Amino acid sequence: MDTSIPGPTIGVVGGGQLGRMMGEEASALGIELVVLDPTPDSPASPVVRDQITADFDDRDALMELAQRVDYLTYEIELADPDVLEEVSDETAVEVHPAPGTLRLIEDKLIQKRRFQENGVTVPGFREVSSSEDIHDAIDEFGLPLMLKARLGGYDGRGNVPITSESEIDEVMDQVEGAIMVETFLDFDRELSVIGCKGPGGNELYPVTETIHEEEILRETVSPARTDDKVKQKARETALKVLDILDGRGVYGIELFELDQEIYLNEVAPRPHNSGHWTIEGAYTSQFEQHLRAVAGMPLGSTEIRGGTVSKNILGDVDEEKQARLTGVEEILSREKAYLHWYGKKMVRPLRKMGHFTITDIEDDLDSALNEAREIRGHLVFD
Amino acid sequence: MDTSIPGPTIGVVGGGQLGRMMGEEASALGIELVVLDPTPDSPASPVVRDQITADFDDRDALMELAQRVDYLTYEIELADPDVLEEVSDETAVEVHPAPGTLRLIEDKLIQKRRFQENGVTVPGFREVSSSEDIHDAIDEFGLPLMLKARLGGYDGRGNVPITSESEIDEVMDQVEGAIMVETFLDFDRELSVIGCKGPGGNELYPVTETIHEEEILRETVSPARTDDKVKQKARETALKVLDILDGRGVYGIELFELDQEIYLNEVAPRPHNSGHWTIEGAYTSQFEQHLRAVAGMPLGSTEIRGGTVSKNILGDVDEEKQARLTGVEEILSREKAYLHWYGKKMVRPLRKMGHFTITDIEDDLDSALNEAREIRGHLVFD
Repeated sequence: MDTSIPGPTIGVVGGGQLGRMMGEEASALGIELVVLDPTPDSPASPVVRDQITADFDDRDALMELAQRVDYLTYEIELADPDVLEEVSDETAVEVHPAPGTLRLIEDKLIQKRRFQENGVTVPGFREVSSSEDIHDAIDEFGLPLMLKARLGGYDGRGNVPITSESEIDEVMDQVEGAIMVETFLDFDRELSVIGCKGPGGNELYPVTETIHEEEILRETVSPARTDDKVKQKARETALKVLDILDGRGVYGIELFELDQEIYLNEVAPRPHNSGHWTIEGAYTSQFEQHLRAVAGMPLGSTEIRGGTVSKNILGDVDEEKQARLTGVEEILSREKAYLHWYGKKMVRPLRKMGHFTITDIEDDLDSALNEAREIRGHLVFD
Repeated sequence: MDTSIPGPTIGVVGGGQLGRMMGEEASALGIELVVLDPTPDSPASPVVRDQITADFDDRDALMELAQRVDYLTYEIELADPDVLEEVSDETAVEVHPAPGTLRLIEDKLIQKRRFQENGVTVPGFREVSSSEDIHDAIDEFGLPLMLKARLGGYDGRGNVPITSESEIDEVMDQVEGAIMVETFLDFDRELSVIGCKGPGGNELYPVTETIHEEEILRETVSPARTDDKVKQKARETALKVLDILDGRGVYGIELFELDQEIYLNEVAPRPHNSGHWTIEGAYTSQFEQHLRAVAGMPLGSTEIRGGTVSKNILGDVDEEKQARLTGVEEILSREKAYLHWYGKKMVRPLRKMGHFTITDIEDDLDSALNEAREIRGHLVFD
């Protein structure tokens, strides 16, 4: 492999916080980014070469993007695999991860089937198209179950729990499009592994613990506070998952831990919220790693640099308003704490507005997590 | 202090690599940058909100810049302190560091006098306006001497050595404008301290060793390979220097070590090449620190995170040409090594094109430095 710089220009479908954090890392590598996003002046916009303002599946805009770049990638699953594939065929610009991988992942039913067929343990699931199918699923798996939209759900959107047979019709009305049900795993812990497929093979970051509320990620703890045997199983699962996927890039692999066993929850074909800790906590951030992978550069070290907790700054507001966060000095004046602001102009309830990390935690991850929670208590959208 | 984000917009005079590395750090803090630089599409341009293309001392352009931002700073000493002061007075936009500090520093004679008056040890120097003054200086200090342009010199430009009395006239012809002479200190080592003046006081990064050739910085070693007593004296000198300067921001304080004593060489009122190692090697990079200081945010930790060497990638070409650097995989495939490309389109002899660091060196800084030199040998502008 001969790597020369200036490196390639990479076109990114999506200009949210993931694109922004890619932009923060690209220039040191001699890589330039052009993002495509429907929101004018998207979060990524100030730190990338240019933004094309258009819908994620706008074929003409994607053609324009492809013609300006050397590689295409995406930071959002709403990217359209069919259009990406067409544009790639027409322009000979490679898309990483492959459109086929995006297609596999965007449908949660197909994703689960494929992983299960390839020896990955997943929670029980079943395709459903009628209330009868749900009754059958209850017979098979028992209650509670989770009804999920097969397409387009994230951060818990499109997921509705079913706790009794009487709720079935009501719940079905709440989810649009094709659906499936999944058993509700009463897990001991949620874990995540950031995996990367580079030009020379697959690599894994250390196993991270993820803490969700209302199905939205709130906190991560790295390394995960679980035993080594479980971590080893998590790594084995992550490697199996990577083997099934096609195309270079970083993948977020979300897992459940239950009774010392690992179940695959979901895979994201992009840098993932559970990997933000790598910016300070690992030798190579997941964003730099993704760009290296897409550009065909050698991957960087995935080794942990220091114990790290991260905490999301979600919009804890009652209604949409101009984003202004006070109390930030609580982060800035804490040694080894790092702020990451996403540049969104408006704050909305539960919107991801930023995150912060505390790094180089010697051993007491619990205390650091408590401290992060305390700091979060001082942050106010006023 | 109440810090809220989105943070301020900062106007930066100069859009070179220092502005670029500021841009890479600004967005995480919720800070936006607008740079002013005469070169269209300057190195900073892809990672900042906007560039105003104009000369550094263009009053109208500086007025426009001031009207768009909350604070002004500069990343190049060619910024004009008088114009900056006028614009600041007219718009009530603060300039950090203060224009008076820039004025003090831009004239090497005035700088040296002021520091000496305030108890900082400097090499012998003398104002000169005629060849007779130089003869007098030779009588006072002996040979060799360094003839220096008082204004505008950097990276050795504007410096000419005098090794015999017969050279005096010839040497005087080579330097334009007001001049001075300085003794040529046969130092044991060159050191640097990155100092910062924040809203709550002054802070220092650990003492760094700097290795120059032809008066251009080539390498840094952090922590410096010298004894603790010398480091303590270096810190004391740096603190005295910071006390003399006015205005928030990061300062590069270059020092000579000779016989266990510290002499001040020069001060730069901005992030400095000798502080690039802080991006990976310290808990807060000098670029983030500068932005925090200018924005009035609390300073971050200046603690070293791991032993670090840095090596500049200078243009080792015979003549100007399109910049394309091969062999970069030698950096990218080395664990704990980091590339920083400056995005300059053309490479010229000795032009600073980028740098790389190796970090978290346990103890053998010598070997790491040798390794960095070996890696540099593989990098070729083709």
